[in-house]
Amino acid sequence: MKQYPKALGRLVGELSKLPGIGGKTAQRLAFHILSLSDREAEALANSILDAKHTMRYCSVCGNLTDSDPCSICTDKSRRQDVICVVENPRDVMAMERIKEFDGLYHVLHGAISPMDGIGPEDINLKPLIVRLQNSDVKEVILATNPNIEGEATAMYIARLLKPSGIRVSRIANGIPVGGDLEYADEVTLLKAMEGRREL
Amino acid sequence: MKQYPKALGRLVGELSKLPGIGGKTAQRLAFHILSLSDREAEALANSILDAKHTMRYCSVCGNLTDSDPCSICTDKSRRQDVICVVENPRDVMAMERIKEFDGLYHVLHGAISPMDGIGPEDINLKPLIVRLQNSDVKEVILATNPNIEGEATAMYIARLLKPSGIRVSRIANGIPVGGDLEYADEVTLLKAMEGRREL
Repeated sequence: MKQYPKALGRLVGELSKLPGIGGKTAQRLAFHILSLSDREAEALANSILDAKHTMRYCSVCGNLTDSDPCSICTDKSRRQDVICVVENPRDVMAMERIKEFDGLYHVLHGAISPMDGIGPEDINLKPLIVRLQNSDVKEVILATNPNIEGEATAMYIARLLKPSGIRVSRIANGIPVGGDLEYADEVTLLKAMEGRREL
Repeated sequence: MKQYPKALGRLVGELSKLPGIGGKTAQRLAFHILSLSDREAEALANSILDAKHTMRYCSVCGNLTDSDPCSICTDKSRRQDVICVVENPRDVMAMERIKEFDGLYHVLHGAISPMDGIGPEDINLKPLIVRLQNSDVKEVILATNPNIEGEATAMYIARLLKPSGIRVSRIANGIPVGGDLEYADEVTLLKAMEGRREL
């Protein structure tokens, strides 16, 4: 056996396509899967197919959902006058975990990145503008990532919304809680100073 | 969305059952899977089902195979008079990678571990004895892991085979190649000294 038997080789190959899974990990996972009972292996395979078939993007906010519109967009107990704009559905989940924000979301599915040839028309931005025109949204919180692409996207959206009179805000940069000033990079420290608040 | 939509939640749950995959990684993998094309997701799911249905254990050596007896057991160009005993199929692959050993294998599917209630009858040992009785095997190389269970298993098999007159050997312990004496643990260093060879 100079190489894997065919079916095992294919499984290892498929697994190693997943992000962060290298050859060794893929092999370990494959052997684990082979050690599962038939029922367990089928549950795993079916959960992949099922999720792939069931999950779609909300036609209103662009978040991942199994019902359209999603449970956040249809939740009337949430504030309807504030929209938090994020880059992807994982960011919605991160935001929901803090259990503080009770407005709506808008998922851009990316960020403007001229370097990668991604312009404003390549992300889920136009539906946000349309959505804002027919609503009484008072504030748009730009929660794109604090990196070059995220900042550029936030700046672009802010400028775009300026004429509408809607309040546009940006989440704060600064030292993470529990972090250490000594190890903070200079830009973060600078942003933390700029964003200082009176006590 | 205080929690995942159902199908996504199930996928994350199934993925996080895999060894070394925690909640965060499972979520990242799940989102990646949802971003795949239908065809790619099906390829992944089918490779799991296919491998699970196709792969079995060789009735001769116990190695993982898609044909029975396996390609190693049926390879007449390999030496038929030496058997390397390992704990699991991954060890066979590791051994095959060095491209040095060209004998046969026997996979124990575990090691004797009284602490975990695993005795000699709980591993694939009896078939090895039967296999040796009807053969002209001249050497059995014990390549179980150099830990307590592996050593105990090797000792047990060595004692069991003593009356048969078959030569029984054990792979060497020592400092790994490229390793550093300074950082070797004492037991390894001791074994390296014990196993020293004249130059």
